[in-house]
Amino acid sequence: MHAIAVHGGAGTLPAADLTPAKERAYRDGLERALRAGFGVLDSGGASLDAVVAAVQVLEDDPLFNAGHGAVLAANGQHELDASVMDGRDLRAGAVTGVRHVRSPVVLARLVMDRSPHVMLAGPGAEEFALEQGLVPVPNTHFATERRRLELEQMLAGRAEAGRESLMGTVGAVALDAHGNLAAATSTGGMTGKKWGRVGDSPIIGAGTYAANDCCAVSATGHGEYFIRAAVAHEIASLMRYRGLDVVAAADEVVRGQLVRLGGSGGVIAVGRDGRVALPFNSEGMLRGAMDSRGLLVTGLLQD
Amino acid sequence: MHAIAVHGGAGTLPAADLTPAKERAYRDGLERALRAGFGVLDSGGASLDAVVAAVQVLEDDPLFNAGHGAVLAANGQHELDASVMDGRDLRAGAVTGVRHVRSPVVLARLVMDRSPHVMLAGPGAEEFALEQGLVPVPNTHFATERRRLELEQMLAGRAEAGRESLMGTVGAVALDAHGNLAAATSTGGMTGKKWGRVGDSPIIGAGTYAANDCCAVSATGHGEYFIRAAVAHEIASLMRYRGLDVVAAADEVVRGQLVRLGGSGGVIAVGRDGRVALPFNSEGMLRGAMDSRGLLVTGLLQD
Repeated sequence: MHAIAVHGGAGTLPAADLTPAKERAYRDGLERALRAGFGVLDSGGASLDAVVAAVQVLEDDPLFNAGHGAVLAANGQHELDASVMDGRDLRAGAVTGVRHVRSPVVLARLVMDRSPHVMLAGPGAEEFALEQGLVPVPNTHFATERRRLELEQMLAGRAEAGRESLMGTVGAVALDAHGNLAAATSTGGMTGKKWGRVGDSPIIGAGTYAANDCCAVSATGHGEYFIRAAVAHEIASLMRYRGLDVVAAADEVVRGQLVRLGGSGGVIAVGRDGRVALPFNSEGMLRGAMDSRGLLVTGLLQD
Repeated sequence: MHAIAVHGGAGTLPAADLTPAKERAYRDGLERALRAGFGVLDSGGASLDAVVAAVQVLEDDPLFNAGHGAVLAANGQHELDASVMDGRDLRAGAVTGVRHVRSPVVLARLVMDRSPHVMLAGPGAEEFALEQGLVPVPNTHFATERRRLELEQMLAGRAEAGRESLMGTVGAVALDAHGNLAAATSTGGMTGKKWGRVGDSPIIGAGTYAANDCCAVSATGHGEYFIRAAVAHEIASLMRYRGLDVVAAADEVVRGQLVRLGGSGGVIAVGRDGRVALPFNSEGMLRGAMDSRGLLVTGLLQD
C-alpha cells in the first residue's frame, strides 16, 4: 500500500475565480503534483522524495501561493517559508523568510540532511543555500501579475491583510511501500504580511509533522491559529493517545478545536494504513489524493 | 494556590565553573527571578505577568544566556529569541533573530497583545518593536567578556558549536490564584550558531506551551531535538489524553522520549493543581520553584 495527498491552499474561493477553465487549471495542477509524487512511490521510492517532488510541482506552478506565484509581503517582496519532516526518525528541516531560493522545500530538505539544525531564517538561510550550491534566483522569479494586483488592492484598503481569496500554502503527505511517512509544506505566506511574520508552514508540529507510528500531516489556513493549536502534532497525539484513526483525529482538530479557536483552514493527513483525510472548515480547500488501490481524486469546494 | 518555576539553562556544568561563589551567584539569580514572579502572583496578579517579570530578571542578569549575557553567533552578533503563551486562551507571541531589543520576552508579549500575528522574525520584528515604542539598544548592550571568550574558543576549534558548557535558555512557568497558567522562554541560542539558526525557544509547542486545561511548560536544551519531539505540546498531550500528572508527563518526555531521540536538556512545568516538575536528562539544569504553600527551592546539578 502506498498513498499521497496534496493541498494547494484553503479559504474562500470566489465564484468569479472558479470559471470552468480555472477549475480545470487547479485540478490539473493538483493532479500533476499527485502524479509526480505517486510516480516516486510507485517505483518503490521514499515518501520523503515523493512529498518533496509533489511540492516542487506546486511551487513551480504560478496558480499556487508557493515559489513562483507566491503572494507579496507589504514591502513588495516575496518571502517564502517551507518545511519537511521524515516520519522514520523524526528528522526535520525548515526555512523562513527566504527570497532567492527557487524551491524552498528543497532548501528545507537540505537543512535537514546537511546541517545540524532544524530551522534557519532569513539571510542566514540564504547563505546556507549558497553554501549548498543552490543557484539563487532574483526575487522577481516568483512574481505574477495576479499577486501584484492583490497586494495593490490590499494596500489601497480594498482587501484586508491575510484575508485574500485563498490562504495559500501547498503541501504533501505520503506513505511509501516501506511503511515510511513524510510531510512537506511550502508557502509565500499572507498577502501584505509585515514585520517578518512567520506562519505555521515552517513550524514543525504546527504546519508539518510526520511520525511512522501514526501519521503525516500538512496544514493550510490562518497560520496563527494553527500554531496556537499545534495542529499537526495534535492530530498525531489524538491518534497515539486517544486511539483515533487518521480521519477522526484530523476531523476533531480541524472541525472541532480549530473552529472553537476561530481558525479557518484545513489539513491533509495520511495514516500508517494509507488512509487519507482531507478535512477543512473553510469554504474550500484545493486538495487531491492518489493511492495504490486506484484512488485518484481532486477537490476544490465542499463535496 | 499559586506557584512559579524558572530555569536558567541545562547542560554540563564544569566543576571549575562551580566555585562556591559561582554557585551562590546562580542560586541568587534564580531566586531573584522567582521572587519577581512570585510577588506578582502573591498580590493576585496574572501568571502571564509573573512569567514575563521572572524572565526579564534573568534576561538582565549577565550570568544567563538571554538578554544581557547572551552568547554570540558565529558572526559576532547577539541574535535573540523569545516566546510567551497564555494558557487562558492559547494566545501566543514569539520573536526570533532580534539584535536590538533589550527584553525579547517583552517584545514577544507585544507581538501577542498588539499584533495579529504569533511569530515575527529578524529586522521585521525589530521594526515592530520600534512601532511599539521600544527603545532600541546597541547589540553591544548584551555583551560580556565571558561570551566573547567562548566564541573565540569555539572559532579557534577548542570547543564545538552548540557544545558550550551550558546550553543556555531562561524560562518561567506559573499558575496564578485565578487558575490561569502561562509560560515564557528567552535565549541567545547556541554559541557560534550560523545561518540564522532558530532553536526551540521561540517555537510554540516546542520550547513553550501553556493551556489552562493541563499545564505550562518552558524548555531548555539542545533545541533541534526539542523541536522534533514537540516537547512542550507533547507533555500537554500526555496529560490530556493519557491522564498523566505533570510530573509523570514531563518525566516521560525528558527522560524517555528525548533520551531515545538523543536530545539533552530539561523542562520546567506546572500543572493546574500547582504541582511543579523540573526534570532534566543532562548533568545539570539551573532551576528553581516557589509556591504559596511555602516551597522555595533552587538547584543546579542532580539532587
